[in-house]
Amino acid sequence: MMQETEISTLGEFGLIERLTKNFEIKNKSTSRGVGDDCAVIHNGDMETLITTDLLLEGIHFDLTYVPLQHLGYKAVVANVSDVVAMNGIPRQITVSLGISKRFTLEHMEQLYAGIHAACDEYGVDLIGGDTSASVTGLIISITCVGEARKDDIVYRSGARDTDLICVSGDLGAAYMGLQLLEREKAASAGIKDFQPDFAGREYLLQRQLKPEARVDVLEELRKLDIHPTAMMDVSDGLSSELLHICKASNVGCRVYEDRIPIDYQTASMAEELNMNLVTAAMNGGEDYELLFTVPLTDHEKVAQMKTAKLIGRVTKPELGAYMVTRDDAELEIRAQGWNAFTNE
Amino acid sequence: MMQETEISTLGEFGLIERLTKNFEIKNKSTSRGVGDDCAVIHNGDMETLITTDLLLEGIHFDLTYVPLQHLGYKAVVANVSDVVAMNGIPRQITVSLGISKRFTLEHMEQLYAGIHAACDEYGVDLIGGDTSASVTGLIISITCVGEARKDDIVYRSGARDTDLICVSGDLGAAYMGLQLLEREKAASAGIKDFQPDFAGREYLLQRQLKPEARVDVLEELRKLDIHPTAMMDVSDGLSSELLHICKASNVGCRVYEDRIPIDYQTASMAEELNMNLVTAAMNGGEDYELLFTVPLTDHEKVAQMKTAKLIGRVTKPELGAYMVTRDDAELEIRAQGWNAFTNE
Repeated sequence: MMQETEISTLGEFGLIERLTKNFEIKNKSTSRGVGDDCAVIHNGDMETLITTDLLLEGIHFDLTYVPLQHLGYKAVVANVSDVVAMNGIPRQITVSLGISKRFTLEHMEQLYAGIHAACDEYGVDLIGGDTSASVTGLIISITCVGEARKDDIVYRSGARDTDLICVSGDLGAAYMGLQLLEREKAASAGIKDFQPDFAGREYLLQRQLKPEARVDVLEELRKLDIHPTAMMDVSDGLSSELLHICKASNVGCRVYEDRIPIDYQTASMAEELNMNLVTAAMNGGEDYELLFTVPLTDHEKVAQMKTAKLIGRVTKPELGAYMVTRDDAELEIRAQGWNAFTNE
Repeated sequence: MMQETEISTLGEFGLIERLTKNFEIKNKSTSRGVGDDCAVIHNGDMETLITTDLLLEGIHFDLTYVPLQHLGYKAVVANVSDVVAMNGIPRQITVSLGISKRFTLEHMEQLYAGIHAACDEYGVDLIGGDTSASVTGLIISITCVGEARKDDIVYRSGARDTDLICVSGDLGAAYMGLQLLEREKAASAGIKDFQPDFAGREYLLQRQLKPEARVDVLEELRKLDIHPTAMMDVSDGLSSELLHICKASNVGCRVYEDRIPIDYQTASMAEELNMNLVTAAMNGGEDYELLFTVPLTDHEKVAQMKTAKLIGRVTKPELGAYMVTRDDAELEIRAQGWNAFTNE
């Protein structure tokens, strides 16, 4: 049986010491990490990038089926992905936790094992945070600091008429993974020793439970000497992100239904659940793929890319944002992305 | 009657736009604020300081008696104070919110009015954040970015044997303000149109509800050419902070009971509530005063300070950390500071 240590026996500072003691500093820019009023960073002539995410139990994750280790990993990846989406290099994170009484030290060690694994994977230093009791549930707030040369930063606002629109990997799989987990959770209700059926769906689970930030896409862009004009990560769904870029850049867009990259498992799961596949791919969210635009003149370079695919083009703003369907109809793109403030 | 707008009618991005539209960028180092995957900061040759705080309803604040505007102000001050405690200049903040259904847009506008007032007071730019629904209660996670020249930064670890220990302002008033608010809350239970009795206690309320970060202490230190060897802000209580400095610097300390600065209202309230005054001053927390050590040779300079007072001296580590009482007894200093993981 797993050992169970009540967090109150350690206190706030004891808990922080215990959880952070195995984290080593990996970046030269981290002048001082955990243990003072502030962490200290030196970036010299580089720009400093800052992003932050709040993850709440019951809203963003369900511990019935999400292992704490995966949750820790994914929480870091979600932030790292935002730095990558600016064409930056992630360097440091702070981790703040609100912890209700049902969690033990061992639970928090599992969460931190995932945070540690992600820090190792992406070369990120843990430099601080805040830890507190919570009335109910687990609260995770992560801030990620990155760096980039000024001219390398890619904003959402740089897309121009006639640019090409590209997206990495495939879309909708993380959302289908969530549907699968929810289905098996519902099926397990009241059944002792229930064995969920995930055979042939491993990719969907991996996309939902252990997503990765697409550092490799940035590397391929550099190798091919492609400089995106605008870029975002796909966290709320492709529709929502396309509209963000259109608004920030004051442009319109056309994306082609038959070019939206979708994995076989995603399609098969959508069929089984009787869900609209394109809707899932356009609005699913949590894919952490990169959506970017490039000048039309980079067409041949983009065609060579292994990690990303051309899905559409940027237009004048008055042409609006539309998806061109397989039968050449135009559907207006709406942000049906996951909205934490509605009950949909 | 106040207008009430359900947050779900705005959505996450609508809410953020509405709340942040009146925040102007004040710092040259803020290259890009709200509205992209990351904020962008340029600090040149300066060191970047990062600190973060998580504030949870039911744990850190009680909206029965804390106005949302004050809560927003205090949440920023708590972070700014950490930057000040490193001898840094606060520059930017990110604000993440988890908001349960009982809060309306107007509530959040009150909170942001306080955040705005604090940003103006301390010259800080709001550069980003994350906003989500929460299952229960209000969650506030703020990260503050500051800057400092490398040689100006004061860590907790620089205190040396024979250094003098100083603290700014007075201690225990914020804690007594909390006791007063709690007493009036209890007294009001079940009574319609209850009028709380705060006469003559205005200072205690101000210390609890609208604390300030002691930028003025840094200014006086600079004016007198005093360079603290170690510094912290008093957020968890003097005892707790003294032990942090002793541990980080590997030293001991003696502080003198009769030198602990205490306001008249604090003393009078402690008497009325039959509480030990020195315990309240040593362990109360939330004072946001500055605790710092200076070389013995700065004795005469420190004596001239208007904002801070000499309260003790640093010793060799083997001498431990003790308070010398009025009758010359030595009481070991223990961290009875407010601990969110116990029920004390």
